Amino acid sequence: MNQSSHKPLLLVLLLFLCLENKGQAQEKSDSIVIHNIYHSMLTEGQGYDWLRILCLNIGHRISGSEQLARADTYMKSIMDSLHFDSVWLQPCKVPHWVRGKEEEGSVISSPFGSFPIDLLTLGNVNGTNGNFIKGQIIMVKSLEELKLMDDSRIKGKIVFINKPFEEAHLNTFQGYSNTVPIRSSGMGLAMQKGAIAILVRSVTTKSDNHPHAGGTRIEDNAYQIPAFAISLQSADKIAEALGKGPCEVKLKSNALYLGLTDGYNVIGEIKGDSLPEEIIVLGGHIDSWDVGQGAHDDGAGCVHSIEAVQVLRRIGYKPKRTLRVVLFVNEENGVAGAIQYMKYATQAPEKHIMAIESDAGGHTPTGFFIDARADKFPPFQSKVNSWNDLLSPYLLKFFPGHSGADIGFLKDMGTCLAGLAPDSQRYFDYHHSENDTFDKVNKRELHIGTAAIASFIYLTDKYGCE
Amino acid sequence: MNQSSHKPLLLVLLLFLCLENKGQAQEKSDSIVIHNIYHSMLTEGQGYDWLRILCLNIGHRISGSEQLARADTYMKSIMDSLHFDSVWLQPCKVPHWVRGKEEEGSVISSPFGSFPIDLLTLGNVNGTNGNFIKGQIIMVKSLEELKLMDDSRIKGKIVFINKPFEEAHLNTFQGYSNTVPIRSSGMGLAMQKGAIAILVRSVTTKSDNHPHAGGTRIEDNAYQIPAFAISLQSADKIAEALGKGPCEVKLKSNALYLGLTDGYNVIGEIKGDSLPEEIIVLGGHIDSWDVGQGAHDDGAGCVHSIEAVQVLRRIGYKPKRTLRVVLFVNEENGVAGAIQYMKYATQAPEKHIMAIESDAGGHTPTGFFIDARADKFPPFQSKVNSWNDLLSPYLLKFFPGHSGADIGFLKDMGTCLAGLAPDSQRYFDYHHSENDTFDKVNKRELHIGTAAIASFIYLTDKYGCE
Repeated sequence: MNQSSHKPLLLVLLLFLCLENKGQAQEKSDSIVIHNIYHSMLTEGQGYDWLRILCLNIGHRISGSEQLARADTYMKSIMDSLHFDSVWLQPCKVPHWVRGKEEEGSVISSPFGSFPIDLLTLGNVNGTNGNFIKGQIIMVKSLEELKLMDDSRIKGKIVFINKPFEEAHLNTFQGYSNTVPIRSSGMGLAMQKGAIAILVRSVTTKSDNHPHAGGTRIEDNAYQIPAFAISLQSADKIAEALGKGPCEVKLKSNALYLGLTDGYNVIGEIKGDSLPEEIIVLGGHIDSWDVGQGAHDDGAGCVHSIEAVQVLRRIGYKPKRTLRVVLFVNEENGVAGAIQYMKYATQAPEKHIMAIESDAGGHTPTGFFIDARADKFPPFQSKVNSWNDLLSPYLLKFFPGHSGADIGFLKDMGTCLAGLAPDSQRYFDYHHSENDTFDKVNKRELHIGTAAIASFIYLTDKYGCE
Repeated sequence: MNQSSHKPLLLVLLLFLCLENKGQAQEKSDSIVIHNIYHSMLTEGQGYDWLRILCLNIGHRISGSEQLARADTYMKSIMDSLHFDSVWLQPCKVPHWVRGKEEEGSVISSPFGSFPIDLLTLGNVNGTNGNFIKGQIIMVKSLEELKLMDDSRIKGKIVFINKPFEEAHLNTFQGYSNTVPIRSSGMGLAMQKGAIAILVRSVTTKSDNHPHAGGTRIEDNAYQIPAFAISLQSADKIAEALGKGPCEVKLKSNALYLGLTDGYNVIGEIKGDSLPEEIIVLGGHIDSWDVGQGAHDDGAGCVHSIEAVQVLRRIGYKPKRTLRVVLFVNEENGVAGAIQYMKYATQAPEKHIMAIESDAGGHTPTGFFIDARADKFPPFQSKVNSWNDLLSPYLLKFFPGHSGADIGFLKDMGTCLAGLAPDSQRYFDYHHSENDTFDKVNKRELHIGTAAIASFIYLTDKYGCE
């Protein structure tokens, strides 16, 4: 061969080398940005201080409460003070349910005599109008057992569903999903079969005297029976007593569903530089149950979302796309905020390319659950997998799975979805209970959660989702 | 080609397919064993209950203390009750240091007036013989600053080293390693330069009023000066006062080094089935500092080690090699137990193929640090990497790095070493302080730490280390 015949080969080779060098340089510059994000969060993160004020000065904040209004003002003020490009409230109607002043229960006769029960009326359920109701307890270990039981054994009784949390799963969200139907579907089923009230073993990994609140499925205008979650210590004591003989209980609750009231998604954004009409949503929910302080659920997700945007600005990154923080209202007892945002998003001229939710606590991040419509999932998965080498030094992985209750509504639009997956071992110790307080949150864990989200957002903004 | 000429090719192909099938079946059976280990630990783990008794009924247990003797008896009784093949105490001499009844410090004059200092005398150091010493404080921000400072500025003063914990590292053990020389080397350096005492900012990630104890380097028979760790709140207040003017402090301690006394490594083992002369060591340390309850440091490592052996028996696995639990004595202020065990191991006819240490807390495991002598490391690393697919579903990885202070002495013998790497974010909040108590340990986190160790031990026992 003469020299000239080498030319095409050389050109291809040179091109290849250039591309490879560019790829390596790119990866290096990405790894520097991610390093800077983590460095900033570990040395100058602010979210922990915001969360302290949200938890200690405001506290729990159920839809319709005065505390939620204060939380709206406070979270909006943070984004205002950070000079986000726009900050606004998006109104919607939310359920207004109140626990009322008193709720009380006790075993009044049993082989162990009488003893009090630690209980919380389930969300959106009407109580006993302040009067005591009394009845014999009939215990089942599962919804299936309740379904199969002859109605005659249930009629006029108080059903007690005592299914333990499925501890065998490494990820406690799996155990929760498999156990929570006793709370969400138990009331309706027990009512159909003639029960006068229902007690549900709290869906938690923690055995103590704190019941864990939560919602239950209620059809519009349907008749309801009073429904309560009880602590694991109470559940175990009642089960032990029932092993020896019959138990009669009395129960009282002033809980009342008051209809709809005003609620707001709290939204703030910074405009994208070159693709401002493409939106990346970062969200958590601003409401909580009306016990504890809503620290892990979901104050953590709110400060994660705000500071993930802010840390990118702090390290000098200018996003191409618009980064929008949405603090959804009413995740706990209605998801009205999520539905409102979805309605807005489907009509808006903007394109929602990605949404990321943090609603699994403020513990050490282990990665992200990713989800998308069937046609969008394969390219999204292949894209995020190309980021594995960048994120694995931070012990982050991608898992196919459920992203979150609030952003899930955007899936049908074709938005790619991701849910932060913090270490889940402690989460259901605290979830929906008096245990979910600020002192359970570790500053470093919270801040590296933010860093994980910011790193993912950075890559998504830079490279897109498909 | 005629048919017969295909034969060699077909045979190779068949062999290949068989090997591949065997490999897949092997991997499947390994993954079932690991699943069973996790299932057993999550649903019937016992270590948390053992740790409760160690922490709440016995408490902290420094070398030479009556509590350590009780801990020896208790931990031995656990292995006896589990019917380990042999359980014994291995004697050695350990330093006997006592804090004494009183220690006290305060700023007696400063721009902020007088205020108390939260302090702990450093380990193995003699105090002030119960008398107050007084002096002006001179603050430095690092050992380097102290080294460069003219002796005349230090002579007769009380040196205060106020270097903050290096928070920027994702793994807090890195931050600890970079910060702890102020405590381990500060006293010697300050003494050489004429200081009369030293205060060291506690090496911790937690800002509160608890000082964090620890050792400092002392040459035999060397003259010493009184040395104290102070809480972050005290350190910050003193630093703030010094920014406005001079501070004088008084310090008192009855700490005393009493020479050597008896100590014991607590050892239990189950004999290997086919290779009993090959030993796999699992270890933690039974002693602790004399504050808190030694829950994460290192009660967790002790129960990890015992139950990692026990869970393998519970699921019906019969180890080929001998699994030996060694609960080392005196890790905190001398590593006498580790040195004693190393002396034993070098003379024994047995072969120590692997040692694994858990001395980094009871939080969610993220993987293992692996280490070995230069000639042993490459095959060990290549072997453990072949287990990545089996362990990554449990979010476990292998990192080259330091395994642990107690098993490190076995490296020169050619033993492969591994150190459990739990999530490190909270560890130095508790480490060596009143904060290290049982309530800081989460049952599920502790038990999956055990499962991680047991899974690694299972693979090592089955496939060896090289």
